[in-house]
Amino acid sequence: MTATPVTVIGLGSMGTALAGAFTRAGHPTTVWNRTAAKAAPLVAVGAAHARSVGDAVAASPLIVTCLTTFDDTRSALGPAAARLRGRALVTLNSGSPAGARETAAWAGGLGARFLAGAVKNVPSAVGAPDTLLYYSGDRSVFEEFETTLRVLGGDTVHLGGDSDLAALYEMAVGAMLLPALTGFFQGAAAVQARGLEVSSMVRFAGKWLDMIKDLLPVYAREIDGGDYTDAASSVNLFLTGAAHDAELTEETNVDTAWLAPLHDLVRRAAEAGHGDHSISALTEVLRKPA
Amino acid sequence: MTATPVTVIGLGSMGTALAGAFTRAGHPTTVWNRTAAKAAPLVAVGAAHARSVGDAVAASPLIVTCLTTFDDTRSALGPAAARLRGRALVTLNSGSPAGARETAAWAGGLGARFLAGAVKNVPSAVGAPDTLLYYSGDRSVFEEFETTLRVLGGDTVHLGGDSDLAALYEMAVGAMLLPALTGFFQGAAAVQARGLEVSSMVRFAGKWLDMIKDLLPVYAREIDGGDYTDAASSVNLFLTGAAHDAELTEETNVDTAWLAPLHDLVRRAAEAGHGDHSISALTEVLRKPA
Ligand SMILES: NC(=O)c1ccc[n+]([C@@H]2O[C@H](COP(=O)([O-])OP(=O)(O)OC[C@H]3O[C@@H](n4cnc5c(N)ncnc54)[C@H](OP(=O)(O)O)[C@@H]3O)[C@@H](O)[C@H]2O)c1
Ligand SMILES: NC(=O)c1ccc[n+]([C@@H]2O[C@H](COP(=O)([O-])OP(=O)(O)OC[C@H]3O[C@@H](n4cnc5c(N)ncnc54)[C@H](OP(=O)(O)O)[C@@H]3O)[C@@H](O)[C@H]2O)c1
Repeated sequence: MTATPVTVIGLGSMGTALAGAFTRAGHPTTVWNRTAAKAAPLVAVGAAHARSVGDAVAASPLIVTCLTTFDDTRSALGPAAARLRGRALVTLNSGSPAGARETAAWAGGLGARFLAGAVKNVPSAVGAPDTLLYYSGDRSVFEEFETTLRVLGGDTVHLGGDSDLAALYEMAVGAMLLPALTGFFQGAAAVQARGLEVSSMVRFAGKWLDMIKDLLPVYAREIDGGDYTDAASSVNLFLTGAAHDAELTEETNVDTAWLAPLHDLVRRAAEAGHGDHSISALTEVLRKPA
Repeated sequence: MTATPVTVIGLGSMGTALAGAFTRAGHPTTVWNRTAAKAAPLVAVGAAHARSVGDAVAASPLIVTCLTTFDDTRSALGPAAARLRGRALVTLNSGSPAGARETAAWAGGLGARFLAGAVKNVPSAVGAPDTLLYYSGDRSVFEEFETTLRVLGGDTVHLGGDSDLAALYEMAVGAMLLPALTGFFQGAAAVQARGLEVSSMVRFAGKWLDMIKDLLPVYAREIDGGDYTDAASSVNLFLTGAAHDAELTEETNVDTAWLAPLHDLVRRAAEAGHGDHSISALTEVLRKPA
């Protein structure tokens, strides 16, 4: 059996990793990028470099795009629009649910079948058995190309028929990234200010993330049930954290101003009567009044 | 050999877990709490309830405190100050490095030996083989009581002789908690707004935390080396995230205002010339000019 031919459009850090994985797995892989030079390393390992985005689309039944946004994706595919008919278009960029719906409608109008996905990992993890990618939209596309898509990561999931579900989960899950990292960078700056190596805190920070991971199912149950009364770590406990920040700033000369709105949320949760409740009651404060 | 007698002062969620672990491990355990009623469950499993904080201190060579802050700790121990001479005082509250130093000086003045520690986990994890606690200060106290302290968690570490190191690491590592959780709660509210169960995102969020954990040694190396040029995920990539937040708010009616200062930090990093650099370059922006 011949491996399914696949086209990858958009060869940034992530697109290059995707195209590399397809090529290494023996899929006839065609690539195209606005800045053509980025195709060279992939051509060196066996990918075909299409002269135009239209040629790239025409080369395969399965088109995987990895551009910055949905807008970029539609605009880059513009000149190839007529050739999308009958093909499967799979987007793997970050973006909003609205962007996914818009792109689904646009692709549908051109007669393409559409799946919007997300890579929940870094480029270097592409192709690993444990790497998570999820997709939503036309299930028949997922079923037809599942083996090929699984080349990108062993944990490959279809979330449902609505094309915007992957984007919704991508945003929901991704919401932890920048805040968690900034917390780490702040800690790093504090440790450095004391003349210590940031590496010395990595093991501790890793265990801390393990602990946070173990808490998520508990918090999810509390939020799903709307019952915050069984609080292992209460809103009031977090209230005392605000003072600590000021002390950290003074001690280490690290700017903790970005945390002020977080403490504000905690305060608002306490004021709303959640003081003795689980910190997961913050969810109630984050929901805007309709 | 008889197990070392130990006194636990402060029987909130965490102190109760600590005293329970000592009692279960067969250590003669004396407890005291400002609100006396909280001692009852521990007395039921074999702990001795001291009538006064002075009696509590006098009962054991090793005194473990778990009150809200260092100020609370010194003030609660006030009436017992004269009886601390020659004993080992171990604090297990959150607090600033300055608070630890102040308490070390106070304890030293009273002739007590001092160790300031932190429990890097939730009360229910106390006593587990993998639970992390770290200590700093008088190494002879750690060495003398290490077996007893290890009852509280198998991953028990002495960070160094400076009494404030545990507080510094506690703050540095702890800086991820509220931001990461708030990110999760925001995602939870978004998923709920779509009529989906928060539980449906737990597995994905857990893998996301695993990925973040894998990134920490990379970022630590970048920050320790001051070299941000090999960027798997660049500052510019995170810049596009600001727009996504506005879309998430519109889509799901979740308040994302708390993220504005984070995007500000990212923008400032880009303006400082870190656009193409690793997101770990945020550390440079968090450091205030001296
Ligand atoms: N890198 C990661 O860690 C990671 C992880 C998960 C998800 N993602 C997502 O994957 C997507 C791509 O990320 P990346 O890291 O690969 O970004 P990148 O390295 O900045 O690459 C962006 C790609 O999009 C192309 N592009 C952007 N606008 C275009 C336009 N209007 N027309 C044609 N091409 C355009 C660029 O072409 P040029 O080369 O011509 O500029 C480049 O190929 C993003 O949505 C990102 O959020 C990335
Ligand atoms: N719970 C966690 O998940 C967790 C995790 C890691 C670290 N910690 C840290 O552990 C420490 C205790 O936390 P917790 O969860 O046990 O808090 P908690 O349930 O609120 O208990 C606080 C304890 O401190 C006592 N206390 C406070 N101020 C006092 C004062 N001025 N005089 C006498 N006693 C005083 C309280 O006595 P009363 O009963 O009389 O009020 C109570 O025993 C904190 O520093 C916290 O940050 C907690």
